[in-house]
Amino acid sequence: MIKKLHNPQDVFTAINEMYVRGAPLIGVCAAYGIYLASIKSKSFEDLTKIASYLKTARPTAVNLEWAVDRIMNKIAEDFSSAQKIALEEASKIESESILECRSIGEYGLKIIEEAYKRNPDRPVQILTHCNAGWLACVDYGTATAPMYLAHDAGIPIHVWVDETRPRNQGARITAFELGEHGIPHTVIVDNLGGLLMQQKKVDLVIVGSDRTARNGDVANKIGTYLKALAAYDNDVPFYVALPLSTFDLSLDNGAQIPIEERNQEEVDMVQGLLNGKIEKVRISPIASPSLNLGFDITPAKFVTGLITNLGVCGAKEEEILKLFEIK
Amino acid sequence: MIKKLHNPQDVFTAINEMYVRGAPLIGVCAAYGIYLASIKSKSFEDLTKIASYLKTARPTAVNLEWAVDRIMNKIAEDFSSAQKIALEEASKIESESILECRSIGEYGLKIIEEAYKRNPDRPVQILTHCNAGWLACVDYGTATAPMYLAHDAGIPIHVWVDETRPRNQGARITAFELGEHGIPHTVIVDNLGGLLMQQKKVDLVIVGSDRTARNGDVANKIGTYLKALAAYDNDVPFYVALPLSTFDLSLDNGAQIPIEERNQEEVDMVQGLLNGKIEKVRISPIASPSLNLGFDITPAKFVTGLITNLGVCGAKEEEILKLFEIK
Repeated sequence: MIKKLHNPQDVFTAINEMYVRGAPLIGVCAAYGIYLASIKSKSFEDLTKIASYLKTARPTAVNLEWAVDRIMNKIAEDFSSAQKIALEEASKIESESILECRSIGEYGLKIIEEAYKRNPDRPVQILTHCNAGWLACVDYGTATAPMYLAHDAGIPIHVWVDETRPRNQGARITAFELGEHGIPHTVIVDNLGGLLMQQKKVDLVIVGSDRTARNGDVANKIGTYLKALAAYDNDVPFYVALPLSTFDLSLDNGAQIPIEERNQEEVDMVQGLLNGKIEKVRISPIASPSLNLGFDITPAKFVTGLITNLGVCGAKEEEILKLFEIK
Repeated sequence: MIKKLHNPQDVFTAINEMYVRGAPLIGVCAAYGIYLASIKSKSFEDLTKIASYLKTARPTAVNLEWAVDRIMNKIAEDFSSAQKIALEEASKIESESILECRSIGEYGLKIIEEAYKRNPDRPVQILTHCNAGWLACVDYGTATAPMYLAHDAGIPIHVWVDETRPRNQGARITAFELGEHGIPHTVIVDNLGGLLMQQKKVDLVIVGSDRTARNGDVANKIGTYLKALAAYDNDVPFYVALPLSTFDLSLDNGAQIPIEERNQEEVDMVQGLLNGKIEKVRISPIASPSLNLGFDITPAKFVTGLITNLGVCGAKEEEILKLFEIK
């Protein structure tokens, strides 16, 4: 199913209802949303209003406001060229995102290579949560980029794919992506990862991030924190893959990151295929309320390293700030 | 839907395919299975064969072998009265189970009362995983017994109900049970509990157990360990409610507890209501394999206390053995 986005409202809906999702892709999509807005905006004030509106489509992924602000700051210098600037900048954000993901892949590849050297008797066992793949970005993905590059380099890997309730992005998207690329993988319920780590069946965890604070606290899809705890308890390295645009240096720590609350239906109903059609089944009593919070915070102390497009660093303020100096 | 069990094969199927589930109820059901077997068994050897077969219906819950062995040991003394002994003993196990759950409830009630005294400004916020309620037992439940008694005693409580993938016993059974009893509750995905604890929205965790080793390591439904880790990280007391029959003193520690592997379909397909009918939808690509392990081990060090029918004790060998001396 292909949906065309014709105006800023379409872009808002696509982000809000998660036709596009994943921090980097949300950023790119919002960037083109500003371009679409610039076509009809008569003043910088008009455009600013739409920009503010677009930024409210989803609260947790910082790439949304980052991309919008980046374009708006450029346009502020010369509103008469708004349309041209917006298109150029959106296209730049898009192509940068591909290169960034590729770089993340190359830095992460080394980590997988090292893991393989430590235990060459079996494929490197990697656990991931949610989808931080190319369907969350433009290409490669963040968390998956190292996996694609490792596989292409001939390093045997096997990926444990958390289904990632409530929306099952792992079972639906990550499993699909890995399958398309020919990477061996196994879908598991979100509850299983702890046992697998206890049983020494996981060598590495690699996840993405929606926003990472200055101190290295990581917001990512709900349930990530539980896997980080299990990794820590079982001495399994826990890596977060993210481009620099996912850092929010304005926040001291993860407690300041806004957590999105979504509708209860995503918890109450599960979507899947039935006789070739997409259907939703209700899994809980109608009378039972539910709560649907989309992200949790993994404290920096549980993060082994951050795999960024400028290299791997510890989840520590001084190391993160050094990356921004390089940049 | 009511299913009548007519013979040991029916009982095996009911346990194996989880028409009855929950450690205590599996024990009671298997006990009546021995009674049904005793009706047609011509020799103690015949009956022993069926007893061994029944014990293989599910590997993790120790109450299954405990109940079968208890009856078989009695019958060994006088096979000519096998039928009478089996019926008496099965009925005894059934009524004992009710009393045990009631006692667990009374000991657990005190813990909830204390939690309420510490923070009387809101209902006591209790998180539970899977279903260890009366539908897992004969009455009261294990983990839920303290909740029922607290509610009946007028202590305001609210229960966070983990949906408990893959089979969603939380969303389907615990939510139903609590709703029937008028206890406020909210269904959540298994991924959410960690964040709720970070946000100080959980005062207590109470879960059941399928087998607990001599040293206090607890086997319970897959995902329990992840909640124990989060509870530990956030100073939330983590209690396990179980009758003495769920201890397996023959095992030094949890690593020796057999973990059941069930069929992949329970992971790949989610069952629920669609237009008033029970349907299953497929949530992952057909080409993607899955793995379905039913239980994990929560190390004793993460368990605040064991709520048993003979009182609350620490998850420590010396304290557990003391309970068996009382008994």
